[in-house]
Amino acid sequence: MNRYATDVGSQTLKSVGTPCLILDRDRMDRNVARLRGRLDRLGVQLRPHLKTAKSVDAARRVMTSPAGPATVSTLKEAEQFALAGVTDLTYAVGISPDKIDRVLALRASGVDLSVTLDTVEQARAVAEASRRTGDIIPALIEIDCDGHRSGVLPEDQALLVDIARALENGASLRGVLTHAGASYGAIDDEALRAAAEGERAAAVRAATLLREAGFVCPVVSVGSTPTAHFAQALDGVTEMRAGVFVFFDLVMAGIGVCAIDDIAVSVLGTVIGHQPEKGWILVDAGWMAMSRDRGTAKQAVDQGYGLVCDIDGRPLGDLILSEANQEHGIITVRPGSTASLPDLPIGTRLRILPNHACATGAQHDSYHVVRGQSDSIEAVWPRFGGW
Amino acid sequence: MNRYATDVGSQTLKSVGTPCLILDRDRMDRNVARLRGRLDRLGVQLRPHLKTAKSVDAARRVMTSPAGPATVSTLKEAEQFALAGVTDLTYAVGISPDKIDRVLALRASGVDLSVTLDTVEQARAVAEASRRTGDIIPALIEIDCDGHRSGVLPEDQALLVDIARALENGASLRGVLTHAGASYGAIDDEALRAAAEGERAAAVRAATLLREAGFVCPVVSVGSTPTAHFAQALDGVTEMRAGVFVFFDLVMAGIGVCAIDDIAVSVLGTVIGHQPEKGWILVDAGWMAMSRDRGTAKQAVDQGYGLVCDIDGRPLGDLILSEANQEHGIITVRPGSTASLPDLPIGTRLRILPNHACATGAQHDSYHVVRGQSDSIEAVWPRFGGW
Repeated sequence: MNRYATDVGSQTLKSVGTPCLILDRDRMDRNVARLRGRLDRLGVQLRPHLKTAKSVDAARRVMTSPAGPATVSTLKEAEQFALAGVTDLTYAVGISPDKIDRVLALRASGVDLSVTLDTVEQARAVAEASRRTGDIIPALIEIDCDGHRSGVLPEDQALLVDIARALENGASLRGVLTHAGASYGAIDDEALRAAAEGERAAAVRAATLLREAGFVCPVVSVGSTPTAHFAQALDGVTEMRAGVFVFFDLVMAGIGVCAIDDIAVSVLGTVIGHQPEKGWILVDAGWMAMSRDRGTAKQAVDQGYGLVCDIDGRPLGDLILSEANQEHGIITVRPGSTASLPDLPIGTRLRILPNHACATGAQHDSYHVVRGQSDSIEAVWPRFGGW
Repeated sequence: MNRYATDVGSQTLKSVGTPCLILDRDRMDRNVARLRGRLDRLGVQLRPHLKTAKSVDAARRVMTSPAGPATVSTLKEAEQFALAGVTDLTYAVGISPDKIDRVLALRASGVDLSVTLDTVEQARAVAEASRRTGDIIPALIEIDCDGHRSGVLPEDQALLVDIARALENGASLRGVLTHAGASYGAIDDEALRAAAEGERAAAVRAATLLREAGFVCPVVSVGSTPTAHFAQALDGVTEMRAGVFVFFDLVMAGIGVCAIDDIAVSVLGTVIGHQPEKGWILVDAGWMAMSRDRGTAKQAVDQGYGLVCDIDGRPLGDLILSEANQEHGIITVRPGSTASLPDLPIGTRLRILPNHACATGAQHDSYHVVRGQSDSIEAVWPRFGGW
C-alpha cells in the first residue's frame, strides 16, 4: 500500500463510498497550532504521540520537524515513521525483551529510538543487548504519577536507582517519563490543572532523586492531551507528549479540553432505513466504523456511539448514534431531549463525531481529507494499523 | 497484500511478535462440523456469514462449497470473496442507492449477489437500476422478528406487498430475511429456543403473506449463532445464516451456546510489567488488540476485556483483562475471586480469549493458525477490513 497521500480526482462528501473516515484539515491545523503556541509559551518541546493519527501525512503536520521528535506506542509505528524519515522517536510502552531486536534494527538504520521500562528485569535485558551489540540503547524510566497504569512510584528512590544501575551496565539512562492517564476522568478545570501539576511534580521528583543518586537524567517527559492543555507551569519538564489533541473527540470535549467544533475527525455515513414507531433512523455506520468505544458513557453527557452532524459537520440538534451493530448504526434523539426526529430520507449523508479518535481511527485504513465547509475531498491519507 | 495463506517458516507461539491474533484450526473445524451436522438434521442449508472471519482461507473451511453460498455485511467483503471464486452471496445490510453500482459490477462479473431492503424507496432504486441495465437484481425483504434493528413487521402485509410490487417493476423478489439479534441477550436455553422459533415464525409468516398476495418468495432466510444452535425445527425455512459460530467467543459462552474451550480465537500477548501492590500484571495487549467490546459486561459473568489463558490456551484460574489502554492491558484476578495472582515474569506469553470474535478480529490483519496443543504456527491467513 502507498504510504503517502494520494490524489482522489473529484470525489466529494456526496460521492465517496460510505462509511469512511473524514478529516477536516483546517480543524486539525488549528488544534496543532493551539498546543504548539501553548508549549512555546511554557518553554517545553512538543513530542507528539503519533498513535492517534498513524499516518505519515498527518504526522508531518503535527511534528515540529520532519525528523521528529515524536512518540510511538508500537514498534510498527516506529518502523513506519522511520521509513518516512522520522529519526527521533520514543517508544512509550514498556519494552518486552523479545522486542529488543527490532529496537536494535531501527537504531542501526539511524533512528534515535529510546525505550521505556519500569523494572530491573527489563533494564538488565536492555543493558545485555547493548553490551552484546555495542549499541548503547537509551531508556526512560516510567513513573507512575497517578496510579493509572504502569511505572515506578516517584518517591521510590531505591527502585529508581536499582533500575538506573542495571541500565547503565551497558545501556544508558536518558530520563524519566510519565503519563497522567487519570486526567481523562477529570471533571473540571481545577481537577485538570491539579492533574497536570501532579504529573509534572512526579516526573521532576523522580528525576531529582536519580540525579541526587549520581545519575545524569537529561529528559523529563510528561504528557496527556488534558494535562498538556491545562498545565500552568512546567518547571523542570523538558518535553510534552500528547496524541489525541491533533483531532480531539467527544471525550475531550466532555472534559472541557476542546469544543465540539474543534473535533477534526468524523465518520461519514448514509441513511439506509427508518423505524419510525421506534424513533430510529438507520445508518451504514455501525461499530465497525465507529469502534466499540463508549468513552462518554461515564461523562455528564453520554453521546452514545457518536454525535450526529449534517454533511457539513454541524450537529443536528440532539441526534446521537445510540446503538451500533457491526454495520448498522441506530440514530435517535438523545434520551431526555424534547427534540423531534428530523426527516432524513434514505441516501442522506451524515457525519458522526467519535467518542475516541484513536479508537475510531483504528477502524479505517485512510483519512478522506476535507477543509472547512467545502465538500470536496482534497486527498486520501493512508493510515496503518498492526504491530 | 497477498489474499491467501502464507507459509511462516518455523514461527511458534513463543517467537512470534505480540500482540497477534491466534486461530486454533482444530477448534474452528469442530465448530463448523457441529453446526453443519445440526443443520443437516434440520434439513436447512447453511449460508455462513463471512463478516466474522473476513478471510478467504477461513471462508473456504466454513462454506459448504468454494463457490458459496455465503453472507456478507459489506460490499468490500463481497468483492474480496468474489475475487476468490465465491459466486453465491447475500449482502445482508440494507442497500443504499449509491451502492447499487458496485452491486451491478459484482453481478456483471458473474456473482449471484442479492441485496436486502425494507422500504419502498430502496425497492424503487433497485428496480430502476435493473431496468436501466437489464440486470434483474434479486432482493430480499428484511423482516423485523424481534424489534432489534431493521426490517418490516412480519404482519405488515400492506408494506410487504408495496415493497414487492416496487421491486418486481424491474428487479425481482428473491425472498425474505430476518436476524434474531435480540437472541444475544437470551439468558437460558428456553429463551434461546423461543428466540429461534420467533425468528422462524416471523420469516415464514412474511413469506406466506407475500405468497398469498401472488408473489413468488423462494428464499426464507433466518439466522444468528444462538438461534442456529437452539432451533428445534425450521419448517418453512430454506437457509440459516450464522457468523460468529466459526470462532465463538466469551459472549456466546456466556449465553450457553458454546463452552470456553470451543473458542477458537485468542490474542497472544507478552507480560511487560507488574504493579504488585495493586494486584496487576501488565501485558502488551490493550484495547487495540482486543477491541473495546465489553459484551460480557451485561452477562452473569463479566469477563472484562478478555479471559486470560496460558500459552496453550488453558484458562489461568480467575485471571481476566480487567482494564485496557491502547497498548496496555491490565490483568487482575476477577473481582470477588479468592484466587491469588500467579507469578508471571516479564516476557511470559499469554493467550486472551475475546468477548466478541468479530470485533477482536477486526483489530488484526491476519490469523496465526495453530492446531490444538502444538505451539507451532502452521500458517498465516490474511484478513481484510474496510468497506
